[in-house]
Amino acid sequence: MKVSIQGLPGSFHDIAAKHYFGKDYEPVCRLTFNEVFTDISKGHTDLALIAIENSLFGSINQVYDDLLSHENVWICGEVYLRIRHSLIGLKDSKIEKLKEVHSHPVALAQCEEFLDERIPYVERMANHDTAGSVQDIVRWNDPTKAAIANEYAAKIYGAKVLQRDIETHHENYTRFIVLDNDKVIHEKASKTCVVVRFDEGDGDEKPGSLFQILECFAKRKINLTKIESRPVIGKPWHYLFYVDFESSLSDPDTNEALSEIESLGCSIRTLGSFLPGEYF
Amino acid sequence: MKVSIQGLPGSFHDIAAKHYFGKDYEPVCRLTFNEVFTDISKGHTDLALIAIENSLFGSINQVYDDLLSHENVWICGEVYLRIRHSLIGLKDSKIEKLKEVHSHPVALAQCEEFLDERIPYVERMANHDTAGSVQDIVRWNDPTKAAIANEYAAKIYGAKVLQRDIETHHENYTRFIVLDNDKVIHEKASKTCVVVRFDEGDGDEKPGSLFQILECFAKRKINLTKIESRPVIGKPWHYLFYVDFESSLSDPDTNEALSEIESLGCSIRTLGSFLPGEYF
Repeated sequence: MKVSIQGLPGSFHDIAAKHYFGKDYEPVCRLTFNEVFTDISKGHTDLALIAIENSLFGSINQVYDDLLSHENVWICGEVYLRIRHSLIGLKDSKIEKLKEVHSHPVALAQCEEFLDERIPYVERMANHDTAGSVQDIVRWNDPTKAAIANEYAAKIYGAKVLQRDIETHHENYTRFIVLDNDKVIHEKASKTCVVVRFDEGDGDEKPGSLFQILECFAKRKINLTKIESRPVIGKPWHYLFYVDFESSLSDPDTNEALSEIESLGCSIRTLGSFLPGEYF
Repeated sequence: MKVSIQGLPGSFHDIAAKHYFGKDYEPVCRLTFNEVFTDISKGHTDLALIAIENSLFGSINQVYDDLLSHENVWICGEVYLRIRHSLIGLKDSKIEKLKEVHSHPVALAQCEEFLDERIPYVERMANHDTAGSVQDIVRWNDPTKAAIANEYAAKIYGAKVLQRDIETHHENYTRFIVLDNDKVIHEKASKTCVVVRFDEGDGDEKPGSLFQILECFAKRKINLTKIESRPVIGKPWHYLFYVDFESSLSDPDTNEALSEIESLGCSIRTLGSFLPGEYF
């Protein structure tokens, strides 16, 4: 099964995909989110897997925007991965001799306490990928340069873990969604994602209107797991709402709630209905 | 009046501050949001001005997080600026001879249509600041290198506007907030910002609870202008809600609404109550 991911072998995307797909997984590694969305919307790969939210960083806004702009893309699953960062060097690197540490800016920020307290003398260098920075330090073959990535990346590229679990907060999880270009609802789906926008009038999609939308879910006791707002392009200070809730699209209650929201003057785009993700 | 801003003279922060403060404005230019928050929370400057949201890009999450982590910082005002991007080169630059264009990644993204259609042969280079990239191209003195910034930056650094208004969407506004370290409520305040979080139990601050919070505003006809959710650090998939609404903190209705929200088991931090911003 060909799966498009953002990142190199050994990246967190790659590890999440290995857990989700098991032995059928055949990665197609891309540098940008945009390339991953192109792969799945044009059918270059069977599926795609992409990070949408981290429990510390928050939502990845670009992925929310890309979901909306790719009309034939459908969320068919999700998976959660505990993010563990390691300081990775060469076989003969010593922590006290390091001069540079390379990683994705979010990974560098998530290890700030370790960097400030344990190796304040080391310069932090931004890279577009955690696993890519391990690949780089191996290629440079300079024991004063280290990377921050998952320890699995050290194994793949023949580097050495200098220090494990260096993240400031251990409650660090990323949620990845699995994308298809066929609209498939899993028969045991119990989670659904939709985007709601007000179509009529001026200012109707202002945040106050969110109350009426949430009421449609609340009175049917449909539990929401997430709400995210994004700007409406061309209408400053008006917002779209991405709502995730614990119910299947084939459930009559869900359909009643969505119909009532439409009757408020909203349009709804369903992004997917699937099995809630496992944790790894 | 010493005002800490993120960006150089000629940056959008600088232009917004000039409009807001008029001739009393004395800029203290900083490279990062973090330095601006340090300036105001430690009283190194009288006030600070910082971007919080753009009508196309959306919220600047780091600023939301910084507002929460700096306990003595208070929002005392706001201002809106129309973002106009120009392609800026040297006096002897020609559009058809350009090889590189430098700017902040968000500015480059907001001019993508112009870059793709009019100068697809030009390489895009990321810089930390729009005005800083104008300063750079003047220093490099190479007519094949251009920048994207406000035309005012061209005037300041002695560069030339090669093409005006190159942004893809013209409905492009940034909202800036003005920060103080004294809790001052303007006597004509009619807008208030608060952060709400559920304190008790597990899962109580899940998005479903947002319905109850919004109900407290809706039944008093207090109009909301924005809701933003951010992760609770250490409690994955639980959220804080930043709520902006059209009412003063000295209004009895506002206090009733906030007390009722507290009685639901929430804690509330007031971020500020001020006059709604003007547009420039």
